[in-house]
Amino acid sequence: MNKSNVNIINYRHKHNLKIYNSWTGKKELFIPMNKKYIGIYVCGPTVYNYIHLGNCRTFILFDFIVRYFKHLNYKIRYVRNITDVGHLEEENDEDKISIRSRIEGLEPMEVVNKYTIFFHKILEIFNLLPPNIEPRATGHIIEQIDIIKQLINKNIAYEKNGSVYFNIQKYNKQFSYLYGNYGSLSHNDITQLINTNYNFLNDKKHFHDFALWKKAQNNHIMNWNSPWGKGFPGWHIECTTMSTKYLGTIFDIHGGGIDLKFPHHECEIAQSIAINNQMLSRYWIHSNILTYKGKKMSKSKGNFFDITNLINNNKFHPTIIRYYILTSHYRSILNFSEQGIKDSEKGYFKLMHTIKIINKILHTINCKKNTLTNTFNFDIIQWIKDCYYAIDDDFNTPLLISHLFKIYKITNSYYIHNMKLSDIHLLKMYMYYFLFDIMGLEMINIQNIDKQYKNMYHIIEFLIQLRIEERIKQNWILSDKIRDLLSLIGIKLQDKKIK
Amino acid sequence: MNKSNVNIINYRHKHNLKIYNSWTGKKELFIPMNKKYIGIYVCGPTVYNYIHLGNCRTFILFDFIVRYFKHLNYKIRYVRNITDVGHLEEENDEDKISIRSRIEGLEPMEVVNKYTIFFHKILEIFNLLPPNIEPRATGHIIEQIDIIKQLINKNIAYEKNGSVYFNIQKYNKQFSYLYGNYGSLSHNDITQLINTNYNFLNDKKHFHDFALWKKAQNNHIMNWNSPWGKGFPGWHIECTTMSTKYLGTIFDIHGGGIDLKFPHHECEIAQSIAINNQMLSRYWIHSNILTYKGKKMSKSKGNFFDITNLINNNKFHPTIIRYYILTSHYRSILNFSEQGIKDSEKGYFKLMHTIKIINKILHTINCKKNTLTNTFNFDIIQWIKDCYYAIDDDFNTPLLISHLFKIYKITNSYYIHNMKLSDIHLLKMYMYYFLFDIMGLEMINIQNIDKQYKNMYHIIEFLIQLRIEERIKQNWILSDKIRDLLSLIGIKLQDKKIK
Repeated sequence: MNKSNVNIINYRHKHNLKIYNSWTGKKELFIPMNKKYIGIYVCGPTVYNYIHLGNCRTFILFDFIVRYFKHLNYKIRYVRNITDVGHLEEENDEDKISIRSRIEGLEPMEVVNKYTIFFHKILEIFNLLPPNIEPRATGHIIEQIDIIKQLINKNIAYEKNGSVYFNIQKYNKQFSYLYGNYGSLSHNDITQLINTNYNFLNDKKHFHDFALWKKAQNNHIMNWNSPWGKGFPGWHIECTTMSTKYLGTIFDIHGGGIDLKFPHHECEIAQSIAINNQMLSRYWIHSNILTYKGKKMSKSKGNFFDITNLINNNKFHPTIIRYYILTSHYRSILNFSEQGIKDSEKGYFKLMHTIKIINKILHTINCKKNTLTNTFNFDIIQWIKDCYYAIDDDFNTPLLISHLFKIYKITNSYYIHNMKLSDIHLLKMYMYYFLFDIMGLEMINIQNIDKQYKNMYHIIEFLIQLRIEERIKQNWILSDKIRDLLSLIGIKLQDKKIK
Repeated sequence: MNKSNVNIINYRHKHNLKIYNSWTGKKELFIPMNKKYIGIYVCGPTVYNYIHLGNCRTFILFDFIVRYFKHLNYKIRYVRNITDVGHLEEENDEDKISIRSRIEGLEPMEVVNKYTIFFHKILEIFNLLPPNIEPRATGHIIEQIDIIKQLINKNIAYEKNGSVYFNIQKYNKQFSYLYGNYGSLSHNDITQLINTNYNFLNDKKHFHDFALWKKAQNNHIMNWNSPWGKGFPGWHIECTTMSTKYLGTIFDIHGGGIDLKFPHHECEIAQSIAINNQMLSRYWIHSNILTYKGKKMSKSKGNFFDITNLINNNKFHPTIIRYYILTSHYRSILNFSEQGIKDSEKGYFKLMHTIKIINKILHTINCKKNTLTNTFNFDIIQWIKDCYYAIDDDFNTPLLISHLFKIYKITNSYYIHNMKLSDIHLLKMYMYYFLFDIMGLEMINIQNIDKQYKNMYHIIEFLIQLRIEERIKQNWILSDKIRDLLSLIGIKLQDKKIK
């Protein structure tokens, strides 16, 4: 408190950020490999369909994380890929984009373009910063072939009928001494699983062996020449290839939705260890799922809520939906409901109201060239620290939000008028940091609603009052005229009998 | 005229579109290869810098063309590439993106991402439809290597020190019998040029031989394995590769800015003819340059006008700039000036006013359930035809616009009130087609104003009238109250003495 008369108090640099590392299953102190730079890779979408809110949850989390690192003045290289080939349908040798292209009667690359545009549009609506590099699988075929060749040379991969597979049993024998068996991230014991699923073996030696390269069937348009004939790369090899190309063989953070933990991230890890003897990433972050009607939101399962439906016709401002997602911790399951968003809206409007009052007070003070000097027992420095502690505790956004609501309470009480001017400035600065810079929310409607709507409201009130008076005078012409005018702008009046 | 009582008259299907084909230097009847489908390829940007208004002119033209084809119910495959590697700086062996990445201290792929995002944002602001496929050069390295191999096998390309070049003299000998010598599109006689420029020969046999593959220098990060060692593809091979991959060895239209005619399009053509014995595209369309202060607008020459500067702070609505570009014919040089845009703004507002009046008349008629039946001597059918003739005459947008202004004149005269109802409906339909569907312009300020504002306007009018009456009755309290209320929403009333 006694230091709060210093004009700018900056807590942007000293941080003990703890991250829950999915690899170790523990909250760990985050120590970047390089003091000033952070490399982060997040698995992007397979662009075969419209992304849904469950996907957005993941990308909003990582946008929050990236924004936080930027706020702390790190230089970030944020890589998020576009999967535009090779993502095979479960228990099936066909890839999702090819299937979709048949359904829609489009070229695969038209499908890719269509859903990439939608993806970008939605993330922009939710105010996500673009990644620094957005590599595409089709843009890295040569690099993927190179890595597959290396895996074959190391005897960890085998070719069969024009396809190449990763040999998990050999991997376990050769590399488990480094970071354990395949499956360590997701705690899957493959030796248990191997015996159960011989149905979908095809050319593979073991069920959980996965495709690095698939031979293209005659009707498969997306194919490239390779040492194993015409084909296309598997899904998992793409991420290992592109993350290491742009971030090095080991980097700080690898992220994605929790459903990617197994098998996708296990495969990425195994490939990387086999090639580079490195764990690919030092911290693994997984965002939990969004459920809807009690089940995981999933496009392929038909269980999803249309984003555009939420946003169109101004039903909800997109920032409300972003806020709603941040009201729950990323490692908790979030059960989507429209009522939940409505509640979030109320909450967010309160925070906007808080901002408004703070600005009003500062404005008034400036106008009057007056300085408030009284104090009361709200410790602003402690509050700032608490907010940072919340973020530093594995990005605890619900806790952060609960701290922000303390300010709502203060601004709605007489306390605020007893705060020091420098404290109010500080309050404003940090409210802006947390809400807009770090949480990536947007200021809504305060200014616009403010002047025009509020003043129109005066006119409407006046007309309603005038009409009551005219009705009492039995001036039906005028009172009916007013009723008609108001109905034009959507205000319906229901009359009771005049006393 | 006598047919104008038919409610929907549709001229969308019968067309004799003539296009100036840069290849033949003549206006030719456009006959698509397939009755229902049109394939079109346009050279996209090299994403090493912010695009400027000159680039936008080209993309707006082709957006207009694509929109017109869609209006005529063709199914379009519109392919526009992103050049993210290999575009060499003139008289230099370095590519533009690598140079830029050094200057900005970014990875080449960070540069690519940054300027691709900007490019997309600007085109979206100008209301351009996205292409169906937007291929990237780095996404087609394997395909480019394949084609280079074929050219070497045909003895039209030679390898030297890890780079591969296209041999123009051999090409002329072997293939000139098909479509003439290299240079036919731009009427450049290479035999004349060859002797003059030995300075920049490097590994090439002749100055105008061009790189198909460049050996990567040690500091060149963007490189791929190839039969000729580590390197990257040249600029020209990319467009031949990607256009033929997605549109076939010959397709309907190839377009780009006029500055791409030579050497870029010449090289594309030579490569295609050597590989497929085909001219690549049947029609070549080139948009002319935008000049600024009398010189070609060019980023590399430092002679450009910042787009964001035009749009920011609502200086001009982006649709005004799009309209401004369409006020001159695409084959004319357009000399950019802010005054020109201001004039366009005035013109466009007149057209918006026209739309407003048409809607008002239709609204009034609907309200009154009345039908106008008188006629006068404006032949609407002829007007519709004239508009289409203008577009069909090599996309003559200035002529089209002059026809639209005829309607402005009509709506500002008493004529409009003497038109048949069906004619006014027709007028509205075609004004919307030409302005919004085909020219891709946007309605500004009309809709919003329309419902809410218009109805508010009724209330305001009522209040003003009421106040006049109350003032006559000397009811100063009420009249002052109304004055104050109106001033709240920005309406200031100045009173004269009451008679």
